[in-house]
Order: sequence, then structure tokens, then C-alpha cells
Amino acid sequence: MTFFRLLLATLLLTVAPAAFAGETVSSPDGRLTVTVDVNGEWRPFYRVERDGKPVITDSRLGFLLTDQDKLERRLAVVGSSRASHDETWEQPWGERRFVRDNHNELTVRFEEQSDAKRKFGVVFRVFDDGIGFRYLFDDASMGQTVRIAEELTEFNIAQDGTAWWIPGGEWNRYEYLYEQTPISGVSVAHTPLTLRMADGTHIALHEAALVDFAGMWVKRTTGANFRATLAPTGSGAARAVRDVPFATPWRTILVSDNAAGLAMSDIELNLNEPNKLGDVSWFKPHKYVGVWWGMHLAVESWGSGPIHGATTANVKRYIDFAAKNGFEGVLVEGWNVGWDGDWFFNGSLFSFTQPYPDYDFDELARYAAKKGVPIIGHHETSGDIGNYEAQLEAGLDLMAQHGVKTIKTGYVTDACNLRYVHADGIETRECTESQVMQRHHLKVVTEAAKRHIAINAHEPVKDTGLRRTYPNWVAREGARGMEFNAWGVPPNGPSHIPTLAFTRMLAGPMDYTPGVLSLEGRGQPLQMTQARALAEYVVVYSPIQMAADLPENYAKYPKAFQFIKDVPADWSESRVLDAQVGDYVITARKDRNSADWYVGGVVDEQGRDSRVSLSFLDPGRTYRAQIYRDGPSANWEGEARFDIIIEEKRVTAADTLDLRMAPGGGFAVRLIPLKR
Amino acid sequence: MTFFRLLLATLLLTVAPAAFAGETVSSPDGRLTVTVDVNGEWRPFYRVERDGKPVITDSRLGFLLTDQDKLERRLAVVGSSRASHDETWEQPWGERRFVRDNHNELTVRFEEQSDAKRKFGVVFRVFDDGIGFRYLFDDASMGQTVRIAEELTEFNIAQDGTAWWIPGGEWNRYEYLYEQTPISGVSVAHTPLTLRMADGTHIALHEAALVDFAGMWVKRTTGANFRATLAPTGSGAARAVRDVPFATPWRTILVSDNAAGLAMSDIELNLNEPNKLGDVSWFKPHKYVGVWWGMHLAVESWGSGPIHGATTANVKRYIDFAAKNGFEGVLVEGWNVGWDGDWFFNGSLFSFTQPYPDYDFDELARYAAKKGVPIIGHHETSGDIGNYEAQLEAGLDLMAQHGVKTIKTGYVTDACNLRYVHADGIETRECTESQVMQRHHLKVVTEAAKRHIAINAHEPVKDTGLRRTYPNWVAREGARGMEFNAWGVPPNGPSHIPTLAFTRMLAGPMDYTPGVLSLEGRGQPLQMTQARALAEYVVVYSPIQMAADLPENYAKYPKAFQFIKDVPADWSESRVLDAQVGDYVITARKDRNSADWYVGGVVDEQGRDSRVSLSFLDPGRTYRAQIYRDGPSANWEGEARFDIIIEEKRVTAADTLDLRMAPGGGFAVRLIPLKR
Repeated sequence: MTFFRLLLATLLLTVAPAAFAGETVSSPDGRLTVTVDVNGEWRPFYRVERDGKPVITDSRLGFLLTDQDKLERRLAVVGSSRASHDETWEQPWGERRFVRDNHNELTVRFEEQSDAKRKFGVVFRVFDDGIGFRYLFDDASMGQTVRIAEELTEFNIAQDGTAWWIPGGEWNRYEYLYEQTPISGVSVAHTPLTLRMADGTHIALHEAALVDFAGMWVKRTTGANFRATLAPTGSGAARAVRDVPFATPWRTILVSDNAAGLAMSDIELNLNEPNKLGDVSWFKPHKYVGVWWGMHLAVESWGSGPIHGATTANVKRYIDFAAKNGFEGVLVEGWNVGWDGDWFFNGSLFSFTQPYPDYDFDELARYAAKKGVPIIGHHETSGDIGNYEAQLEAGLDLMAQHGVKTIKTGYVTDACNLRYVHADGIETRECTESQVMQRHHLKVVTEAAKRHIAINAHEPVKDTGLRRTYPNWVAREGARGMEFNAWGVPPNGPSHIPTLAFTRMLAGPMDYTPGVLSLEGRGQPLQMTQARALAEYVVVYSPIQMAADLPENYAKYPKAFQFIKDVPADWSESRVLDAQVGDYVITARKDRNSADWYVGGVVDEQGRDSRVSLSFLDPGRTYRAQIYRDGPSANWEGEARFDIIIEEKRVTAADTLDLRMAPGGGFAVRLIPLKR
Repeated sequence: MTFFRLLLATLLLTVAPAAFAGETVSSPDGRLTVTVDVNGEWRPFYRVERDGKPVITDSRLGFLLTDQDKLERRLAVVGSSRASHDETWEQPWGERRFVRDNHNELTVRFEEQSDAKRKFGVVFRVFDDGIGFRYLFDDASMGQTVRIAEELTEFNIAQDGTAWWIPGGEWNRYEYLYEQTPISGVSVAHTPLTLRMADGTHIALHEAALVDFAGMWVKRTTGANFRATLAPTGSGAARAVRDVPFATPWRTILVSDNAAGLAMSDIELNLNEPNKLGDVSWFKPHKYVGVWWGMHLAVESWGSGPIHGATTANVKRYIDFAAKNGFEGVLVEGWNVGWDGDWFFNGSLFSFTQPYPDYDFDELARYAAKKGVPIIGHHETSGDIGNYEAQLEAGLDLMAQHGVKTIKTGYVTDACNLRYVHADGIETRECTESQVMQRHHLKVVTEAAKRHIAINAHEPVKDTGLRRTYPNWVAREGARGMEFNAWGVPPNGPSHIPTLAFTRMLAGPMDYTPGVLSLEGRGQPLQMTQARALAEYVVVYSPIQMAADLPENYAKYPKAFQFIKDVPADWSESRVLDAQVGDYVITARKDRNSADWYVGGVVDEQGRDSRVSLSFLDPGRTYRAQIYRDGPSANWEGEARFDIIIEEKRVTAADTLDLRMAPGGGFAVRLIPLKR
């Protein structure tokens, strides 16, 4: 029975302080409004409206604690404060050089109407394209340490509609094909969770600045109502433990008229702290090649033996290839001892300092330096965090001593089976999003930064915009990558990238490792056209972009390969020109180091006739358009995958390009301004 | 990336022991077949087929542990054993006197193909109407103590269809209206979770014998695939901690052609241990009245003051009413000190030994004994388990000394906010299904049994058939009860009971507290007809049945009240004659203490013309049928609720009764054999 709540609310009304009315705060353009209040049961809630229409209906705020009463009812609003902010800041690298942070802020203070009089605050920041909010535990009334059993924040979506999601907390981490279901068909999902309400409004739920806290999954309760659920931990009953004062990560809700608006939001970055590393000019966005795709084709091996990939000779071959074609790094996987046993189940086998005998790291470092092509290091942990942390500094030192500027880390194990060793020697199993894992990732990133090394984490925790604060955390995997095209059942398929662009990629840069122009996996074809393979370099953003195919394969397609050689990995501007989640996306980006623009389009198995207005170009200027597009017979199946037309045109901002995308196809365009 | 699994599987094939083929076991009637095996990744799984068609497709087995590697892959089948069982046992009380336990059993032994060679077993029992299975941890290879972070058992339903469910782990425990959605629209659900596949096959997922383990919720992952998720605990990282050897609770899957088959299954009881209490003849099924509905109408109060319900005079009035009308108990809520403060948030206020001054327990005990109507005790804890356990024995002693034979316990607080005090004094917050809460409930039940007291838990943990082992655990709430008709928003509505009958009630007896013939709540009408109010005594099974209305209201409806006086609370047989989940249910039961039969029918807001064959009656015998049915204008709204026809007929087993159920209506029939 629960009607006691009603009785209690009545009682409390008589003892509560002078009631604050519901507080509201609007976006700078006035379209989005957030209201914060307590309901008739003295439970705090917020809601979000856009143009006066509900987007998020009354949604509760609060926490379950392991050692204190639930913090969620008997709460009164006892104060509020406001601020506004409009600033433009510069990224060291990114999708755009300058980012505007324009928002209105409301902080609401709650106090429990009990003897304990526990107090906390919630800060809302309202941007034109969404909101972020976080809890502030900054009062001694909460005790010295807050032990959070569960977060109770709700996200009640105002309408049903369509959702694109992957299941949260399941064994294969984020590496699932996206589900497209009714919003009312989501279960427990990872974020970003992307929703399109029946009226067409696009919403994405995510978090920003996940630091020293458990990662958030969102769990649908009933209908289109969701609430937060924090990743469990093997370390204790509390999913997050923090000493007061602290703030939780930001809970973010992007709101847009269309898919493009989601992809162009900078809220994720704006809610993170500014760069803490100072001068990070030691990291330069770049493209790279590496000893990698051959393993997934099973023509090379990580472990030692006759087809060992990381041999001195083979790596020299890659260095030569990189130097010849302008790539600025060679990834080498399988270079270190540990791959020959039951490594998937025993990460303790890995040494981060001992190369295989046939990998002469000193010689290769000299060769790489001579050729001007750094080696990209690789630290596969197999999820044994204890083993990795014990060797972390020595392992990073070895890389730094050998001229390595970027390290790809790996955490191949099941989602909640990471082996963590605590300071007291206790060993626990942890989820990808456990609080202690967030500490681990930041430890790796900051230790790497001391050595001017950038980190590209695979099987990572999801991105929450921390690249702003730690600009050497340059990219991550965190979704089904190219390797699933080699051996995945099923492979990624034509709709994967048009979905990723509005789900995983809302979080931040992804090391998808595109560019397999041979369009062939391990006994199965890639489900795309060759023009599409090029387009992915524009559509999928990362400051490090692999050219994943084997050098001998690139030799077969020199004309298409030219685009991969040309396309930059750093941009001054990025715009999604046209898109539907899961169907297609057309993106234009401007090179940060020249006046060139690039346009990429990808489409699902339906294909699409697209008309691309070039109005983003400088007016009055003529450009050479180098166009890589699907040929008339192109299709994602069979020989038709290779039907590509490469042509050049003169265009201006007044022009429109008619670019037919074949089923599973796409296009890539480079636009070079003619010298005046 | 995950393709390493494929490599590993290949490696393991070469070292695995002589492979056992997939083991299968079938039900006694041969229709249901369970197959147990390991898949190509050496992950154990089971599947269930019925008549050769899939019901549960390949579904994995396993566990996440907090301090050991996940136990779920690299596993080989290294042995199996089989048994068959056919026994009929007698219940001390129940829906039927004799229960047949007829099943075939398969135990499969798994061994990890690793250095640790961890071993465990899974036992499957296959009945004609479903299966149960549990894990056996009985080998030292698992270490002394197993710390379970999560159970990974999957339940992959072979087809989409319709689901009836309530959300698992949300604040209001089990007290939600049931959702009816596609199976692919479930999120995290409590069990029993009831499903009807597209082909009409009915399935219910639940568990049996939940003892010293965390309760199981089921979480949909994607599509129609579910997996177990154990209730978290505030006590540690592990959701269940047990020393070897132990067995988990049984995971149960009922499978039936129709709704009736689910409701008539005895699997839940058959998977529990036999009676551990010995002679339990001290508990007799009975009907009772009490000081209760007046509080929900807000005309009486739990706390002291001018409308205090539990006064000596008022309770005497109820005792008189009970004695006069044949009820064998008077529930008294609000008798003890603790209700006057902020009790909802502070269960420590409750004394279980100190009555309010205006409640003369000694005098009432004498009066009750004289009238032959025991008082039914009440222990509201407000979820403060520490406070209750500290007073438990004294509180039970007080009740026993005052002739109390049944105690209603209460745990009114939010689902995961129960205050538990451990042996070392540490205080944690616990979920309704936490492992330590299971220990608490059994402690109360066994302490009560020592004093020959029965327990009726409200805001309980779900029933898992433990009444077989502890027959004094006679009933529970565990769903939205009658009080929601007093003040619930919305009230329970016409479809609630036709849904409960195939969801909550699959678990066991429910103290729904029917019989509000006045059909009026606190400012809102009950959404049912008066005939329906009677029918609920037959449809909703409990060995204790309240007549919940105020005595003065029963005085207004003496003819209808006669049925409540007549209907028994103990049965020798029970049959669901016709039903559709959520729409209607017609149930026949035979009195355990006479040759009378009773039939009850309830229907949702659609109404229904029903034809009830009386073929269950003794052939060749004539019965007086006392029929309480909806009148021609009857309807769940307005004055039409009171349109009831009470009539008598002579019938035999060859007859059929045409009984129209009005929208939100029903019927109740008593069938009395004429003396030969």
C-alpha cells in the first residue's frame, strides 16, 4: 500500500519552508524550457518543453544510497541561482576549430524535510540544442562520504516513436548492431540512446564528463519512460562512492528538429572542463596504416609463428608504404610477449615491455625515425587491469623511448569481467563502466600525457567528451568496427554507418578503421561499394584515421586510394547537410590546414538520389570538385561493389551536385579552391 | 573485437575431453523436450521444444562472479545423470488436497577447460506443463565461497507475442497495474512474467524455492530474448554469497496451450522441499474481518486520536460481528505505538510490544477467546528490519500469549530502501528481493511457527512456493490489492483480477482482501459489479480470505453477504474452466470440508456471455445451484454496479449454466449436492 505518501505529503505541507514556485530556465533562443519543482509527494522533478510542447514530462530526480535513506522524497526547494554564459573556445583538434558555449544555467537547492535536513543541488544548463544537468553534493548534511546504490533520475519521453539502441551491460560491451524499435521497445540501453518522437523531434540521452563515477545506462521502466541505472561494480555494494563535495557527471538530453541537429551539437564538449594538459601541440591528427587487417583476415597472426605479423621485416614494409603515401603512423599489434597462450582468458600473460624476438623494436624505432613515420604502440590488456597497471609506467616509457606518439589500448574481455586489482591487493571483476574503471582509464591517459603520448582505447568506456579536458584521449572504438566486416555474423551491413553517425558518434571520435578498398573480409564480402568506403573518411570523425587495408590491396586501386591519401583528419568546420537516422547521412567538412572542403555521403541498402547544395563554399570562388561516386551498376553485393566513377568538375557555391548513392553506396568529394 | 572467441573455440576443441553429445530429457507425456549442450564457443546452453517446435531457443547458462572469472565459457559437458519421479503428496491446505509430482530429471555436469577446472552442475526437471532447473555448486573447484555478481541465465522466447508484466526493481515494489505489451516491449520485469507467443503457446517465467539467494528479475536484452538479473543488495558487491555446496533457486518455465494450464500448474510447489514444520494442524484456513478498510476510507486512523481504529470498543464490535457471521479472525491494524510520527520514513518508531493505551490487548484477548474469534496480529515494520528483528521474539511472544494465530506483517517502504542491520551492527539498505531479506522473511516465518502462528506478509517478497516447506507462510500481498480501489490513481479496474489470475497468482496465495460490497472507496467507486465482488472469493485463492468491508455496509446487503459467509477458504480441487489472460477467468473449486462446489467468473470491461458446463459435478447427482449473477442493466459504473440477481436452480453434471458477465462484472455460484 502506498497511500501513506498522500498522508505524509499533507503533514509535510504544514512544516515545509516557504514554498518556492517551480523554477524555470530557458535556452538562449527561448525555444527550450526546463522546469524544476517538487511534486505533491515532495519528490523533486524536472521537465523539458520545446516551443511550449513537452519533450520530457515530469521526471523524478534522486538516489538510492547503500547506507542512508533514499534521497528522493520529503524534499523542498530551498533556493536557486542563475547564470548565463556565452563563450567561444578553440579546440586543439576536432570537427571544428571554434566551439560556442552559449547557455543559461539554473541551480536549484533541495533540502530534506526531516531531522537530518540533507541538502543537495542540481545544476541545469540549457542550450539551444539540448540540456545538461548534474547533481551537486556539496553539503556536510550528506555525511563525509556518499555511497550511491543507484541513480533514480528519470527521462520520461513525451511521446512514443522510434529508438536506435544497443543493450546495456551485455557481454559484448558496445559491439552490437543497433536495434531499431519503438521507443516503447527499448529495454536497458547504452547511451547515447537516440530517439525520434512521433512528431519528428529527435532526442539523444547521454552523459558528459564521466569521471570517478559509475557510467550510466538507461533502463526503460514502462511506456516511453526511462530512468538511469548505474553500472554495477565488483568493488562494493555502492556503484559510486565519493567524498563530499563532488558533482556527478552531467546527464545530457539533446533535442533537435532533425538528425543533423543531433550530430552537430557541441553540448558534450561544452559540459566538460577545459584542457588540463596545457600545450598539446605534440599531438597532431593523422592517418595511419598498420599490422592489423591481416590478422582479421587470418593471413597474419598476433602470436608468434610462421605468420606472425609484427616482424621487423613486415613492419619495415609498412613503414615504407606509409612514408611513400603520406601516412604518419604504423600500428603494430602482436609485438609483445603474451599472445601465444590462452590470452583471451588470461591477460596476465601480457608483457608490456618485452617484444617478441622477431620484433626488433630498437631497429624499427631507428627506421621509423629515419622515414619520419612513428610506430603506433599497442597495449592489449585482455581486461587484466591489474597486470596492465603494474606495468603501465614501464610500458609507456618503452613506447616513448621508441618514438611512439600514439598507443592503441585494448580491453578484450566480457563487459563485466575486467580484472581489477585494488590498492590493498584485493581483486575484483568490473564492468566497462564501473567507477574504478573510469579511474583506470584516466590514469592511463594522464600517464601517457606526461610522455606526450596520445591514447586510442579499444573496448573502451564510452566517450563522454573528456577529449576536451584531456586532448590526448584522441579516439576510441566503442561500437562494432571494421573487423566485424571481416568475420562478423552478420557483418556491419549498409545501415550501420548511417546509424552510428547518430548514436555512437554523438559521443565523440571513433577509430572505426575504414578504407578497405578490396571490399573483402575473411570469406565474406564487405557490404558496401568502393565509393562508400571512401565516404566513411568524411562521415566518421576521428583525429586519427586508419587506412586499414593491406598495402598490396591499395596497389590495386590507385585512383580510389588517392582520396584516402588526400583526405585530412582535422577540420575547421563540420556540417551534416542532410540525414535520416539509420538511412543516410551527408556530411561536409572543411580541412583545418587548407581551404579545401570534403563531402561524404553514405546510404543504407535502399540507395538514394541526393542533391548536394554547395552553398557552404566560399561565394564567388571556383573549386575543382574531385568526385568519387557510385557507378550506374553499383550495389553493395558482388562485383557491382567496385563500380566507381571518379571524375572532376568545376563548381561554385551556387552549384548543386546530383549524386546518386547506390544501395549500400555513397560518395566522396574533395573541393579544392582554384587559386585566385 | 570478438572473433578471438572463434580462435579459442578451435584451440579448445583439441584439448577438450571426449565430447558428450547434447543431452536431452523429455516430459512424462513426451511433448516437452529440453536439450542441454555447449555451443561452438564452448558456452553451455539449454533449449526447450514442445511437440518438436521451439519454445525457448538456445539460451545460455552461467554467472558473473565478483572475485573469480566469469563462469560461462570454456565449459565442456563431462557427465550426466537421470532420474524419474512420480509421487502424489497431500497439502495441509491449498487449492487442491493432492498434488502429483511427475517429472523426468536430467543433471548435466560442466567442467571448465582451464587450469582451474571449475566444475558445477545444472539439474533440469521436466514436467508435462513446464520445466524447472537450478545450478548446483557442489565442487571444491569453485572455492569455499561463491560470490555471485550476476546470473547470466537466458530465456530466449521462440516467438514474439503478448506479455503481461510489471517493472522489476522500481520504487513501488509489485504494486503496479500490469502492462500488456508485445513481448518485445518488456523491459526489466518481475516474475511471474506471463507471455503468450504468436502461436498461442502460453509461457510463464518465475522461480521456485527462493531461499538464501537474491530474487531474480528478468531483463529483456533484445527482441524476445530475456536474461536473469539478480536483485542488488546494499550488503556487498555480490548479489548472492553462499558457501559450497549449495543449489540456486529453481528457474521455472511453465508452458501451456492456454491460460488455464498456467494457473493449474503445480510445478511451483513440486520444486519446493516438503513440509519442514511437521504437524501444522494448528493453522486452519479461515475468513476474517478487521479494522482496516476504515483506515483506507480515512474514517478511522492507524495513529491515536479521535478516529483511532484499534480501540478496545471498536475491536469488540468487530469480534461480535465476526462471531455472529462465522468469521474466524479479526485483524487489528494500528494497535501499537509508533504510528503517530513520521512512521513512513522512520520505522524505528514502532514498538511490537506496546499497545496504544486505548487498546486493552489483555481484555480483548479474553473477549476474543470467549467469542471464539482470534485476533489477527499486525506487525508493520515500515521497512526497518533492524528494529523489527530486535523485537521479533518478544513481539511474537506477546501475540502468542494473546491467542493470536495469524500475523499480518508489513514492509511499507520503497523497494530498495529497506533498513537492514547486520550481525556486526552495520546498517545497509536492501531491495525487497535482496539475499538478506530472504533470510529475514524465513526468520520471521520460522520463529512464528515455533509459536504456532501463521504469517501473511504484505509488501512481501514474491511467493516462490515456500508454503509447501513452511505451511505457516499462508499468504502474501505482492500486487496491487483492494486498497488501491479506495484511493489508487487509477483504481484497479475491471481487467486487474483477470490479469492477476495468470501473473501474480501463479506464484501462490494472495491476500487480496476482497468483499467490499458497498463498492465505494475513498471518494471513488470500485470499478466492478456486486456479483463480481463475490466471484473474487473463488477466483483469487488464499487460505485466509478477508471480508474487507465495514460491518455496517454488510448489513445493507444481507443476501449478497450470504455468499461471503458460505464460501470456504480451503479446497480439495480447483479447476480453471475457461480463461483468457487479462480478459476473463472462470474457476471452479470444491470445498475441502464438504461436497459443495463453487464457481466464480470475472471479466474485464468488455463483459462476456459465458456458458459454464457443470461436467465437473458428481455424475447422477442433483445440486442446488445458488447463483449470484449480474442483472440485465449491470455494469462497472454508477448504480448499475448494484444490479445483481440472486437465484436458485436444480442442476446436474449434464447441465450448462448460461451466465452473462456484465462489463466489469462476474458471477458466483454455490453448488450444494442434495442429500441422496
